[in-house]
Parts: sequence; structure tokens; C-alpha cells
Amino acid sequence: MASLHLLSPKGFRAGATYAGIKRKQTPDVGLLVCDQAATAAAVFTTNKVFAAPVKIGREHIADGRLRGVVVNAGNANACTGRQGEKDALRMCQLAAEAIDCEAQDILPSSTGIIGHLMPMEKLERGIREAGEFLGDSEEHALRFGDAILTTDLVRKTAATTVKLGRQTVTVAGVCKGSGMIGPRMALPGKENRPLHATMLAYITTDAAVSAPALRKLLEPAANRSFNAVTVDDHTSTNDTACILASGLSGAKINTIAAAKKFLAALEEVCQSLAYQIAKDGEGATKVVKIIVKGAGSEKAAATIARAIANSPLVKCAMHGNDPNWGRIVSAAGLCGVAFDPDKATLTLQGTRVFHRGRPLPFDAEKVSQSLAAPEVVAELACNLGKADATVWTCDLSREYIAINADYHT
Amino acid sequence: MASLHLLSPKGFRAGATYAGIKRKQTPDVGLLVCDQAATAAAVFTTNKVFAAPVKIGREHIADGRLRGVVVNAGNANACTGRQGEKDALRMCQLAAEAIDCEAQDILPSSTGIIGHLMPMEKLERGIREAGEFLGDSEEHALRFGDAILTTDLVRKTAATTVKLGRQTVTVAGVCKGSGMIGPRMALPGKENRPLHATMLAYITTDAAVSAPALRKLLEPAANRSFNAVTVDDHTSTNDTACILASGLSGAKINTIAAAKKFLAALEEVCQSLAYQIAKDGEGATKVVKIIVKGAGSEKAAATIARAIANSPLVKCAMHGNDPNWGRIVSAAGLCGVAFDPDKATLTLQGTRVFHRGRPLPFDAEKVSQSLAAPEVVAELACNLGKADATVWTCDLSREYIAINADYHT
Repeated sequence: MASLHLLSPKGFRAGATYAGIKRKQTPDVGLLVCDQAATAAAVFTTNKVFAAPVKIGREHIADGRLRGVVVNAGNANACTGRQGEKDALRMCQLAAEAIDCEAQDILPSSTGIIGHLMPMEKLERGIREAGEFLGDSEEHALRFGDAILTTDLVRKTAATTVKLGRQTVTVAGVCKGSGMIGPRMALPGKENRPLHATMLAYITTDAAVSAPALRKLLEPAANRSFNAVTVDDHTSTNDTACILASGLSGAKINTIAAAKKFLAALEEVCQSLAYQIAKDGEGATKVVKIIVKGAGSEKAAATIARAIANSPLVKCAMHGNDPNWGRIVSAAGLCGVAFDPDKATLTLQGTRVFHRGRPLPFDAEKVSQSLAAPEVVAELACNLGKADATVWTCDLSREYIAINADYHT
Repeated sequence: MASLHLLSPKGFRAGATYAGIKRKQTPDVGLLVCDQAATAAAVFTTNKVFAAPVKIGREHIADGRLRGVVVNAGNANACTGRQGEKDALRMCQLAAEAIDCEAQDILPSSTGIIGHLMPMEKLERGIREAGEFLGDSEEHALRFGDAILTTDLVRKTAATTVKLGRQTVTVAGVCKGSGMIGPRMALPGKENRPLHATMLAYITTDAAVSAPALRKLLEPAANRSFNAVTVDDHTSTNDTACILASGLSGAKINTIAAAKKFLAALEEVCQSLAYQIAKDGEGATKVVKIIVKGAGSEKAAATIARAIANSPLVKCAMHGNDPNWGRIVSAAGLCGVAFDPDKATLTLQGTRVFHRGRPLPFDAEKVSQSLAAPEVVAELACNLGKADATVWTCDLSREYIAINADYHT
């Protein structure tokens, strides 16, 4: 079987080109289109400073229908005032001309530097060129994925299939994200219910799903994936995750059983993409998975997991393979939600190091060696309730400083 | 005039010794005592994981009276269970024996590694030795200040005088703090009203102030100083700021006018100490002062200032002298409180770079040069209300990673 990719679900094509917006000469303008009107849903950043494409995107997704997505990397079109909004809308118009639809059927996304007006001449040329060479090959899928990358070192793609009766549904996605990663995305109108860089993700499926159902499914899938990954906890102005469903597999998601199966597939794709973001976090040498169990509420579980994941002290200890568990336990206590060290147990890479208020003896050298792994798991059992949460992050290295201090804007 | 120090206020003596708890051979056990019962107040960490000395300290400060403070560096006595509490109490007993008072007249403090039982033999010897060589010279003051240092590179001291009628009141202090700095300290019983490492501070004064008045004055002074400094936003298990008032100047703080004057002096000392913490933050090359003006509420102002101060992206940009103001504006928008970029203005080292939703043209090279200073000021005017906040932080450098990843516990 050929490997699955973003354009494996029936009905999708993509194109991408280098328009000269990024310094690095890899594609920086991309177009992802559906051959017919797709149902669609998207979650966007809850940052009160949101980019022009987010504003336009929220409007264009409102009717639950899209024909496509137009993206660029190298310029975020954020903090650019009215001109920025005109430019984001112009991107949609250019994409719409390329595939003969209305501008409001296109969702725009941008990622890159904040506070610079868009180089519209380059974008016009780029979008037209991307539209001239649309295709559904793996090469087309990969080039579209490349067009959203910025400081990312690697491509991020995921795909899976799920059987629904006699039909096979394919769910696939690409994303970008490396720095300014602390997504808290919400459905339009739900921005005050923050879930959790720029992080961009586009998911395709050939399932037949109504737009309201798609919204209901995307929200929990995003919460347990993109909104549970953090590199620097800096929620971007541009975070967007968008799903388009062509319906062309013929499989209808119109029963609870079918919705559950589809959600599992969607979550699998989203979690794989989120994991790839943590792994490619700026300067990362390892993924750190924080599992919090038995917290008093979902919110408390997520708050504790995130406080641990975002502590620079914890992230440095993980970088140095230092089993300095006091940093982890104290991070759990500082975040303002219910936590009682006298009831808690902390396990580092399978070794219990702290139990009910007291340190446990352990072989520091051995645990340190176990931390020198591509993935480190810290599990904190709170014993206060039944709520669990998992957050993915990465370690904090000198390379992070190099990327974010030495490279000038 | 001889320079002022911690023991300049009338009635105080101190002693310190190296007991072998820290690796670095500088004093690690100290005793600060008042010749008569002092009125006293203290704010402690709001971390739900608080060290044994914090628990004992809250109990001992409850009656508003202290004869002294016993401190050690090198071991935090945190996450040490019942044995830890016994050890913290034993520290008080040893100190009380040295100056012939009750154990409950002593406030204990510890700073250092979390999760290790206290080396009580060393401490017993240390406290006895410190008690044998008490004195009120500057040398004694400096040695006490040294006994609370851990990763600090420099001593932190401040002092001032204030005229109240014909009397002169002296207010003086020492503190420590470099990493695990994100204090949110509160008066005992007010832990659920978080204000904002281990950060330890001891303040002496010879003013005559009642204990209730001292509590009322310490709280706002701490909020506008210690609780407004952050290095890594990691609220420690041991944060403590304690003030002792001997009353021996004869000046009574019993009018609103006198309280205002005294508060100004207290705040001056606390702010100087807090500033010194930011300046000596782990790996710091500069102090970054974040001023937020015109926010909708005090809480919003503090939340925005703190979100900017804690963003690793902002701290790296400051380290690299990069006028990447988008990171600052987006940090203001991500923290969940009211903020509208279309009303805001951002000024970096006196240069306006962003105004009402739009970038302003500026000489990037010149602003970058202005950021290469020992103190950088970023001022964000929100234009939403009348609340202001100032937070002090430092830049994020490779040295921070070295200190926290390479040095093993």
C-alpha cells in the first residue's frame, strides 16, 4: 500500500511554490482545495491580539463550508491594521480565482514575523502559480506541508484510515510548529473558553460529516492534541487548525457509533501531529510527556500538567538528565489549583521518586541515565479526584536561546 | 556617615558561620536577633507545596512577636514530611537556646535543594557557633546576608532612613534570590490571595510599630517589590519575607502620616532588594522592566506585565537586543485578561514601535543598540482604564541553561 498523505482522502488537491517571502528557499505559499464544497470547521487562537487572516478566517468558516485554504509562511500579517485585513481578503480572492469559487469559500492562514505588511506582489504571483500546478500526488501533499514551515526543522504529517461499515474513511493532516507554541484554540464565538505558536494544522477527510458535527468533533480532538502541546507557552496571534470533509468516501458520520470511530481516527491524527510539534520544538533534544492523574477537576489536571511542562527549571533539568523532582512537585503546587503533596506520588521514567509528602530513595545515576531518552515521561498521581490530563513539551537547551536571541528580525 | 546595613537599626545583632551544608565555602547558617521582643510580620509562599520552615514560621509569627530568625542555605527542608517539621522546630530550639528565649519566638527559614532531610548535626554545630559570635558590625551584617545565598553571585542589601518628627527611623534589609524566582507571597491565612524562588528577605527597623500595622504595611510593600519580580516564574516552596521592628528609635508609627512615610521607606528598601534579585537572576545580563499602564484593573495590569516578563521569547529577544516587539504585544494578548491591540501603544527604551493596532516605522539598528543596556524598559499603554503595574525580570541566556541543566543535584 502506498503511504497515506494529506491528499489521500478523496477529493483534495494542493499546490505550493516559493514566492520569496521566507529567506529559506523552500515553498512559502500553498493552496489546498477540495473539488467540491467541503463541510469545514476550524479552531483559532484565543489571543486577543489575533492576526488579520484569523479575523477573515472566522468569518469565512461561519457557514461551515469551504472550497479551500490559502497559506503563506514568512509573514504573519499580524498587528497590521486595516491594510492587513485587506491583504488577507485579497489572498482569498486570488485563491478563489484560481479554482473558480467565491472568496468567502477560502480560509486564509499566515505565519512568520509579526508587524510587517504583507509583500502582496510576491503573494499574488505565488498564489497564481500554486493554483496553476494543483495535483493530488504525495509530492503535492509534501510541498503544501513545506509551505507552512518556518523555524521547523522537519515536516509534520499524519494519516490513518477507519472502516465504517463497508466504507473506508481516510483522515490525514499536516501541521507546522516549533516556536511560539502554546496553542489555546477555540471555535469561533468560544474564544473565552480557552483551550491551548504559531501552530497551523490542516486536516482532510473524505468522510461525509455535517458542519455542526465536524465542529463538535474538532473541539475535543484539538483539546487533547494541539491544545495540549507547549514549547514556550506563548499562544500565537495566528494559531489555526482547520478540517475539511469532502464526503466523497460515501461514509456518513450520522450515528454515535460512527462519530466515535471517526473521532478516534481524528484524535489519532491530531495527536501524532501535536507530538511532532513537541519533538521539533525550538532547540528540543527530547519530548517530555507530563501525565497528571487523579486531579480534582479537568481544569486542575490541565493546569498542573501545563505548569510543570512550562517551568524552565523542569525543562532545563530534563535537558540535563537531572532527576531534580522537587522542581516538578513544586511546579504542581504553584499554579493555584487544588494540590496536596501529602497525597501525591511522582514517577519519573517508571521510578517512583516522591510519595505522600516524602522523598523515596532511588538510584540517581540510574534514573539520570533513563532520562537520556528521546521521550521522557513524568507521571504525577494527585489522589484528589478522577480527572486526568496529558501535556507534551520538550526540554530547554542553549539552542533555544540561539534561535530566539541571535537571529534578528 | 558610615554606610547603613542590616544591623544599623537599633537593637539588632547577627551571627553566621559555615557549617558545611553548601558546597561553596561561604556562611550557610545565620542568626539574626533582636535584643528585646520585636513586633514582627511576614509573608510566605502561596505554593501548596510549602517547606517545613514555612509551616513552623507561620505558627511562630502568629502572635506578631519575634526575638529572631534562624536561616540556612544548601537545603530547603521541603518535601521532607514529619521529620522535616521536627528539624525546622529543632532549628528554632537551638537558636532560642543561644539567646535565651522560647522556640516560638524564632522564625526559621531554609533555602537549597528540595527533598533531602536536613543534616542536623551540621546545623546544630552551626547554629551554636553563630550564636556565640553575635555582633552588630557591618561585617556581622554582611556575613548574615551571605548565609542565605545559594546560586546568587552577589550580596543584596538595602537601607534607608526616614525622619519622623525629631526622630530618625532606619529601615534595612538583606535578601537572596537568583533562580526559582516568581514569588507570590501572602500573609498567613491569606494564601488564597496570591501576590507574587526561593526568595528570602529579612528587614529590620527600629521604628515602634504594632504587629497589626506592620502586617498592613508589609503586604503592599511586598506586592510592589518582591511579588513583582520574576526570573523563571517558579514560585518556591520556601519564599519568605520577614520584618522585625525593635521600637528602639522611639519613633512611633501611630498616625496615618507617619505610616505613609514609613511605608515609603519600607517600599524603597524592598524595591531595591527586588531589583537586585532581577539583576542577579540566573544567567542574567540585564534587568528588564515591564511597565503596564492604563489597564482595566489592577489584576489585569499585573497579569499582562507578568505574561510579558515571563515569555521566553521576549526574554530571548531582550538578550539578543532584538526589537521584536510582536512578541511583547502578543504576550499581552494571550494572558486571558482584557486587552485591545487597537487601543494600545508600546514603547521600547523610549521609542514608540507600535500604536493602535499598527506598526510604527523605527530605526531597528538604533533601537537594537538602545537595548544593549544594563536596564531595558518596555512600556505598554493599554488605554482601557487607570490601573498600572511594574514587573522586573531579566533576559534569558545560555548561562541560565548551564546553571539549571548542567549542574546536577
